[in-house]
Amino acid sequence: MILRDPIHGLVSFEGAEESIVEALLETREMQRLRRIRQLGLASLAYPGAEHTRFSHAIGAAHVMKLLLNHLRSLHEELPFWQRITSDRKVEALAAALLHDVGHGPFSHLFESALPEGGRHEQWTTRILLDEQSEVHQVLRNYEPTLPKRVAELVNGRHELRYLARAVSGIFDVDRCDYLLRDAYFTGVGYGDFDLDWFIRSLRFGIPENELTAPPLAVDGARGLPAIESFVLSRLFMFQQVYFHKACRASEWMLTGILARLRTLLCAGKRIAAVPPALASLCTTGEATLSEYLDMDDSSLWHSIGQWRADPDPVLADLCERLVSRRLFKTYELYGDATEPGAKRQALEIARRLCKVEGLDPDLYVGLDTAAVAPFDDGDEPLMVIFPEGETRRPGEVSFLLNRLRGERMERIRLIFPPEIRANLKAELAALKLVP
Amino acid sequence: MILRDPIHGLVSFEGAEESIVEALLETREMQRLRRIRQLGLASLAYPGAEHTRFSHAIGAAHVMKLLLNHLRSLHEELPFWQRITSDRKVEALAAALLHDVGHGPFSHLFESALPEGGRHEQWTTRILLDEQSEVHQVLRNYEPTLPKRVAELVNGRHELRYLARAVSGIFDVDRCDYLLRDAYFTGVGYGDFDLDWFIRSLRFGIPENELTAPPLAVDGARGLPAIESFVLSRLFMFQQVYFHKACRASEWMLTGILARLRTLLCAGKRIAAVPPALASLCTTGEATLSEYLDMDDSSLWHSIGQWRADPDPVLADLCERLVSRRLFKTYELYGDATEPGAKRQALEIARRLCKVEGLDPDLYVGLDTAAVAPFDDGDEPLMVIFPEGETRRPGEVSFLLNRLRGERMERIRLIFPPEIRANLKAELAALKLVP
Amino acid sequence: MILRDPIHGLVSFEGAEESIVEALLETREMQRLRRIRQLGLASLAYPGAEHTRFSHAIGAAHVMKLLLNHLRSLHEELPFWQRITSDRKVEALAAALLHDVGHGPFSHLFESALPEGGRHEQWTTRILLDEQSEVHQVLRNYEPTLPKRVAELVNGRHELRYLARAVSGIFDVDRCDYLLRDAYFTGVGYGDFDLDWFIRSLRFGIPENELTAPPLAVDGARGLPAIESFVLSRLFMFQQVYFHKACRASEWMLTGILARLRTLLCAGKRIAAVPPALASLCTTGEATLSEYLDMDDSSLWHSIGQWRADPDPVLADLCERLVSRRLFKTYELYGDATEPGAKRQALEIARRLCKVEGLDPDLYVGLDTAAVAPFDDGDEPLMVIFPEGETRRPGEVSFLLNRLRGERMERIRLIFPPEIRANLKAELAALKLVP
Amino acid sequence: MILRDPIHGLVSFEGAEESIVEALLETREMQRLRRIRQLGLASLAYPGAEHTRFSHAIGAAHVMKLLLNHLRSLHEELPFWQRITSDRKVEALAAALLHDVGHGPFSHLFESALPEGGRHEQWTTRILLDEQSEVHQVLRNYEPTLPKRVAELVNGRHELRYLARAVSGIFDVDRCDYLLRDAYFTGVGYGDFDLDWFIRSLRFGIPENELTAPPLAVDGARGLPAIESFVLSRLFMFQQVYFHKACRASEWMLTGILARLRTLLCAGKRIAAVPPALASLCTTGEATLSEYLDMDDSSLWHSIGQWRADPDPVLADLCERLVSRRLFKTYELYGDATEPGAKRQALEIARRLCKVEGLDPDLYVGLDTAAVAPFDDGDEPLMVIFPEGETRRPGEVSFLLNRLRGERMERIRLIFPPEIRANLKAELAALKLVP
Repeated sequence: MILRDPIHGLVSFEGAEESIVEALLETREMQRLRRIRQLGLASLAYPGAEHTRFSHAIGAAHVMKLLLNHLRSLHEELPFWQRITSDRKVEALAAALLHDVGHGPFSHLFESALPEGGRHEQWTTRILLDEQSEVHQVLRNYEPTLPKRVAELVNGRHELRYLARAVSGIFDVDRCDYLLRDAYFTGVGYGDFDLDWFIRSLRFGIPENELTAPPLAVDGARGLPAIESFVLSRLFMFQQVYFHKACRASEWMLTGILARLRTLLCAGKRIAAVPPALASLCTTGEATLSEYLDMDDSSLWHSIGQWRADPDPVLADLCERLVSRRLFKTYELYGDATEPGAKRQALEIARRLCKVEGLDPDLYVGLDTAAVAPFDDGDEPLMVIFPEGETRRPGEVSFLLNRLRGERMERIRLIFPPEIRANLKAELAALKLVP
Repeated sequence: MILRDPIHGLVSFEGAEESIVEALLETREMQRLRRIRQLGLASLAYPGAEHTRFSHAIGAAHVMKLLLNHLRSLHEELPFWQRITSDRKVEALAAALLHDVGHGPFSHLFESALPEGGRHEQWTTRILLDEQSEVHQVLRNYEPTLPKRVAELVNGRHELRYLARAVSGIFDVDRCDYLLRDAYFTGVGYGDFDLDWFIRSLRFGIPENELTAPPLAVDGARGLPAIESFVLSRLFMFQQVYFHKACRASEWMLTGILARLRTLLCAGKRIAAVPPALASLCTTGEATLSEYLDMDDSSLWHSIGQWRADPDPVLADLCERLVSRRLFKTYELYGDATEPGAKRQALEIARRLCKVEGLDPDLYVGLDTAAVAPFDDGDEPLMVIFPEGETRRPGEVSFLLNRLRGERMERIRLIFPPEIRANLKAELAALKLVP
Repeated sequence: MILRDPIHGLVSFEGAEESIVEALLETREMQRLRRIRQLGLASLAYPGAEHTRFSHAIGAAHVMKLLLNHLRSLHEELPFWQRITSDRKVEALAAALLHDVGHGPFSHLFESALPEGGRHEQWTTRILLDEQSEVHQVLRNYEPTLPKRVAELVNGRHELRYLARAVSGIFDVDRCDYLLRDAYFTGVGYGDFDLDWFIRSLRFGIPENELTAPPLAVDGARGLPAIESFVLSRLFMFQQVYFHKACRASEWMLTGILARLRTLLCAGKRIAAVPPALASLCTTGEATLSEYLDMDDSSLWHSIGQWRADPDPVLADLCERLVSRRLFKTYELYGDATEPGAKRQALEIARRLCKVEGLDPDLYVGLDTAAVAPFDDGDEPLMVIFPEGETRRPGEVSFLLNRLRGERMERIRLIFPPEIRANLKAELAALKLVP
Repeated sequence: MILRDPIHGLVSFEGAEESIVEALLETREMQRLRRIRQLGLASLAYPGAEHTRFSHAIGAAHVMKLLLNHLRSLHEELPFWQRITSDRKVEALAAALLHDVGHGPFSHLFESALPEGGRHEQWTTRILLDEQSEVHQVLRNYEPTLPKRVAELVNGRHELRYLARAVSGIFDVDRCDYLLRDAYFTGVGYGDFDLDWFIRSLRFGIPENELTAPPLAVDGARGLPAIESFVLSRLFMFQQVYFHKACRASEWMLTGILARLRTLLCAGKRIAAVPPALASLCTTGEATLSEYLDMDDSSLWHSIGQWRADPDPVLADLCERLVSRRLFKTYELYGDATEPGAKRQALEIARRLCKVEGLDPDLYVGLDTAAVAPFDDGDEPLMVIFPEGETRRPGEVSFLLNRLRGERMERIRLIFPPEIRANLKAELAALKLVP
C-alpha cells in the first residue's frame, strides 16, 4: 500500500514483512481510530487540530519503518541473534501501529476524566489479546504468538532493549510522529524537528554485558542538534498547545461533565443517550471490550448534545457550554502567587464568588496544574557515543540539555466561569495575585 | 480575536468592523461546523483530510479581510459611493464566514446523496433569515437589515459587482481558502498557489457604465502567473483528491445507504436511530431548521453504526462496509471504452456479475462520471487590464489559459463490490475495456 | 560524506560505490563551480537566486542516487546483463555530478553570448578526457576506461537506454534538481513538484527488442500527476524566471559587452584585465583548457568592473550600466504586434530613437524572442504503462499533457535603453503595438 | 517596487515614504553588496549558503517596514511627538537597508581577519557621510540632514529609544532577517521562528520618564513563545552554522593568508594582484573609501587565485588549499580538556607536530574559541508587559529564558592541517584530550 501523508510525504508499506500494516489497518478496531481526535478538545483552541489517532498510527508505523531500515544498515555491529529479523520487524511495525488502539473518546482526556475507566494501555492490551477482536485475529493469522509478543512490546518490554525503547521511551516513534503531526495541524511552527537527521544520528550504544542487546545511542556531536531540537520541540508543544489555556479549560469542563454524570448515575438517575460502556464504567468500573469500542468522539459528542436537555440543570448547563464553546476562563499564576498559601487563597475567592452566582464550586472552579519534565536524563539516557567508543550523557556535551535536565516546567491556573470574571479579577488584583 | 491557522499563519479580526466575525463564531450554528468535515469522506483516501467546515469558514473570512484591505488601498480609483464602507465590510466578512453554514453532514455529499434535502445554499439562507437562529440574532443586533443583506451577498448578489464576485465567482474567497486548505490537509503538494501575489494582482476593472461598480480585474501581465497557478491548482485538486477513486467509491456507497433508507422508510419500515430531519426529508422532503441543524457528521456516523444491526440485510451490509472501510472498487475507462456503447456494455457485465453474487445491481454497481471545467472563461471573465487601460481576456494573453478555456475534464469509472473483481476484470479485459 | 542541502534535506554518499562523488567534489574543476552562478544574471531580478552550479551538481548526483536505488528495487524485471552493476552506478553518479562541469562564467549565458567559445558540453567532454584535469585523474584511478564511459553518458549515450535518458532526457536528473533548486532560491513557489512521488512512479517500459534495455516508463495512471506537475513546473519556471524581462535584458547587455569586446580585440585594441581565455576565444575561437577554467563569475565580474574605465565609451558605458544594475527596459509584444511586419516596425522605431540619442542601435536595441516547448512528446516519449503491460503516450491519458504536447510558448520583447522609453512608448502606443 | 523574496514572499516598497528604498538600492554601494556573501566562507560547509548581503539588506528593510506598520497601529498610546512621522519612517527604512553597507569581502570575516582594516560600522558611517558616495547623495536629496541622522541611527542612537533598539538591539530587524535567511539558505531547519507572531507581540513598554519615548516590550504571556523561539533559533544557528567546524577552519585559513600577506608587504615584498585597499590597509592601516569599495568577494577570490603562484611558499600553499577546499581539520575539546593547562598542552603537541612537517605553527595551528551569549538579559531587557501595565523581565516568566540568561556557550577546537591528523589524534587520545 502507498499513501500520501502531509507529515511524511509518500508513505508505503510493501513486501511480506510490511504487509502486516495494511492487514491491521483494515480491522474494525483500527478504523475506529478515525473517529477519535488525536488532541481531544484542542481544536477548540487551534481550529486546524482536527486530526485523528488513525493518521497518527500510520505515521508512527512509518517512523518505525524508517528506524528499522536505518538500524538494519548498522547490522554488522551486532551479533546475529540481536539483529532485526523478519519476525521482529513485523512485531515492531505492529506495535508502532497499534500502540494507541485502546484510546477512548478524546484520547488522553477520557482516561484522566474518568480514571475508573482504566488507562488506554490496558485497553490496548485487551484488544491485542481478546480472541474476538479483528486485530487479534490478524496478528494470530501471521503467527500464533504474535498477539502476545506485540502486547509485550507495546508495553515497552522486549529482549532487544533498543527495540523496546523505540516503542516506548524518551525518543520513541510515537513521540517522533505526534510532535511533527500536532505541530503541522495546529499550525504552531515551533514543534518542528529534523526527523531524517534524527534517525540518521541514531546508532547502537554500549550493551550492559555480552548477553544483552545494546540500547540506542546518539552518534557523537553530530547527532546532538537533532536531539536538542526534539527536546525543545516537545517543550514548545507543551507550552503552546497541550497546556494552552483553552485546552485546559475545556478539559476541565469535560471532566466536570463526566463527574456529574457519574454522580447522577450512581444516585440511580436515568439519563438518556448514555453509551453502555460509559454507564457501566461509571457505576461498576467495568465494561465489555465491545461496548468500550462502541465509544468514540462521535458517540460522546452525540451524548453530550442530548444531555443539554437533561433535567439535571448542572449537567445540562455544562454540556450546553461545551457544545457552543462557551468555555471557562483562566488566570495564570506567576511567582509568589504560586505559593501554596496564595494558591489556596485565590481558589477560595473563586469558590466564594461561584456560590454567590449559585454555581457549584466543585464543578465550576478549579486550580489547574499542568507540569512536564522537558528532558528526563534519568535511568536510561540516550547516551552520546564518540568515534572511539567513549560515551557521555547528553547533558554533559550539550549546552542546552545541560540546562534542562531534571527541570520541571509547571503552569498553574485558576479556572472559572466567565460570570465571575470581573469580580474575581478585582479581588485577585487587589491581593497582587495576578499581574 | 487572534488565532493561529496552519494555512494563513496569524489570523486576527480586530476593531469594530471585524468584531462581527468573533460574534458569529460563537453561535451554535457556526460551532456546529466543527462537526462537519470539509471533504466528506475523503479522509478514507487521504488520512490527513480530517479538517472541518469550521476552520475553512474562518479561512474564507480571513481571505476576505485581506482582499478588502487590498481593495481599499485602491479606493481613490472609485467614486465614493462605490467604496467599501464599514457597513459593506461587515456584510462581506459575514458573508464569507457564513457562506457554507447550511451544509449538511459530509458537506456536498449530503446534498448530492439526498437531493430532496435541498441545496446547502437554501439552508444557509434559511439560517440567515430565521429569527430563531443565533446567527440571525447576531446579525440583526448589528443592524436590522443585515441578515437580509448577507443572504443576498451569499447568493452572489450585490450592488457592487466586484464584491458579489468576491463571494461567489470563479476566483472567490471560498475557493482561495479551500484549495490551499484541502491541499495542506491531504498533503497533496500540487494544490498550492501564491495567495499574497494573487490578491495583490487584483485591481478594479472597467465598469460597464458610469453607474455600475467595476468588476475585479487582473493587473497586466504581472498578475497572470497567479491566475494560472490558481486554475491549475484547482485542476490538480480535482484530479488528485475530489475525483480520487476511493472518494468517489465511498460517496457512491453513502448514496446507496441513503437511497436504501429512503426506500425502507417510504415502505413504512421502522428503523432505529434515524435523525428526525433525515426521516422527514426522506418521506416528505421537508425538515424543520432545528432538526436539520441537529444533524452533523457525528450524528450520521452514529446512525450508520447503528444501522449495521438493522434487519434489512442490504442496509446493514452497506453500513458495515462503509464503517470498516471495505470500499467498493473502481475501473477507470479510457479512450474508446468511454463511448456510450462501450460504457453501457461494461455496466451490464458488472450488473450481471452482481446478480450472480446475489447483490442488488442498483445499489452495488454504478457508472460514475466526474467532470469539471478547469477554466470557465465565460460570461464574466476576470479581465486582464494593462497600464494604459486596455483589457484582454486571460485566454488571449496566457499560454496556459488559452489551452484550457472551454475544456472539460472528465473521468469515467465503473464502481463495483470487491467480490466480482476478478471476473469483471477478465471479462472487461477480453473486450479491451480496461488497459 | 553527509551534508545538508536546502532542497533535498540530508544528502549522503556512502560506501564504495558512492565514494566517487566525494573524490570528484574535491577536484579543482568541481570546486570552480562554486564560483559560477546557476542562473547567470537572474539574481538581478530575483535577489535570492545566488546559488551556484556546485550545489546543483551535488543535487543532481543525489537525485541520480535516489533513482538508481528505486530502479534497483525493480531489478527482477530485467535480465541480469541489463541491471545496474556497481560499475554502472559509479558511471551514473559521476555523469550526474559532472554533467555541467564545463560551464563558463554565468552558465548558459556565456555560451550564447560568445558562440565561438563552444558549448559547455564540449568543455565538459574536454575536462573528462584531458589527462591533466583532476577530474580525469580521479576517474582514471577508479578504472582506466571510466573517463571515456562517463563522457559518453554525459552526452546521452549508453548501452542501457534507461540510463542514458536519466542523464539526458525530458525528465532527467539535471532537470529534476534544477527545477526544484531554482524555484527554492528565487522564491517562486510555482516550480515545485513532488520528487519522491515522481521517482517512485518510474518503472521499466517495454524494450524495443529482446536485446535492448528498456526505456523508463510511468507507472499507470498513478504516476501521471507527477509527470504533469513536472511539466508545469518547468513551464512556470520559464515564464517566471528564465524568461523574466530583467533576466533577458541583462543577458542582452552582457551579450553586447562581449560583442563589443570582440570587435575591439579583433581591431587590435589593447584592453586591460581581459582573461586570457576570453582574449583568445574572441580572436582565434580557441583556448586552452587551463585558461578556460581560470574564468568564472568572479573573474568576469572583475573584468567588467575594470572595463568601466576603458577608453572605448561603448564598452565602458555598457559595463557601468550592468555593474550598477541600470538595466535596459523591455516591452512585450502580444497578438497582432508579434506579426513579422509589426515586429520589424517596432524595432525600426527603437533603432531610430537610439540613433537620435547617439547610441549604437546594434548594441543598444534588440528584438528578443524567448521560446520553449513545454512538453515534447516526440521521438522517445516517456510512455505510460498499465498493469497489464499495455502502454500509451502521456498525451493520450493526461488531460493536461494532451493540451500541451507539440505546443510552443513564445515571448517576444523589444529591448532598449531607458533613455528612449517615453518616446518609444508614445510611438508604439500610437501604432497599437503595446497594450 | 515589488519583488519576490524566498524568505518574506512578496516584498514591496511603495508610496512616498518607502521610495527611499528603491532609490538607495540603485546606488553603486548597495549594488556592490551583490558580490559579498552574507556568511563569508560558510558555503564551504553548507553548499546552499551562497546568499549575499544584498538580499539580506532588502530583507532587513522589509522587516523594518512590517515593524513600523505594527507600531503605527499602536500610535494612540504615544504622545504625538513620539510617533513615527514620515521623516522617521524614511530614516528607519534607510538605516535598516544600509546598516551593513560597509562590509568588506566575506562580511564579518574580513574585519576579524584584518583588524587594522577597521570595523564595518565605521565604513558604513563613512559611506553615509562621504559626499562622493551615491548613497550619501540619494539621502541628501531627500533631506540635507538625512545622511547624518541615518548614521546616528545605524549606530544605535536615536531620540526614540524604541527605534534605536529596532535597528541595533537584542531583537533588531537585522537579526530578524538574518536568522531566517541563513536558516533558509543553509537548509538548517532549526533557525526558524515565527516573524509575524514576533512582530505582532511587540508593543510599547514603560518609558523611563515623561519626556523619553518608551522602549519596546513584549505583550504579556502571549508574546513569550515568539521571544523564546527567536533566542533558540539564534542559539541553534550559532551551534550549527556560525560555529561549524568547516566554517571556523576556513576562516582560520583566510586569517592566515591575510596575516602572511601583511608580513610580506611590510617586508617590502612585491605581490601581484593585491587590491590597492588591501595593500594600504596592511601597510598603513588606511584606505580611501573608493579603493575600499572596489574590494568584494569576487576581487578577493581573484587575488587569492593569483597568489597560488606567488613565490612565497606559505602564501601560495594556504591559497591553494583554500581555493581547492583542502581545509584544515579540527578537534573539539570537551570537559576537562578545556581547562587552560589541557588546552595549552594540546596546542603544544600540535605545534610540535607541525614543525616536524616543516609547517609554520603560527599559521598552521591554532586554538579556536567560539563563544556567544544566547540570551543577554542585561541593561536594556525587552520587558514583558501585562494587561494591567505591570512589567517583568523575560527570565522571570519564561521557563526557558530563565535557564539561559547570563549563560555563555563556548566551543573550543584545535585547528590543524590534515598532514598531522593521525599523529595528533594518537597523542591527544593517549592524554584523554579527545573523546
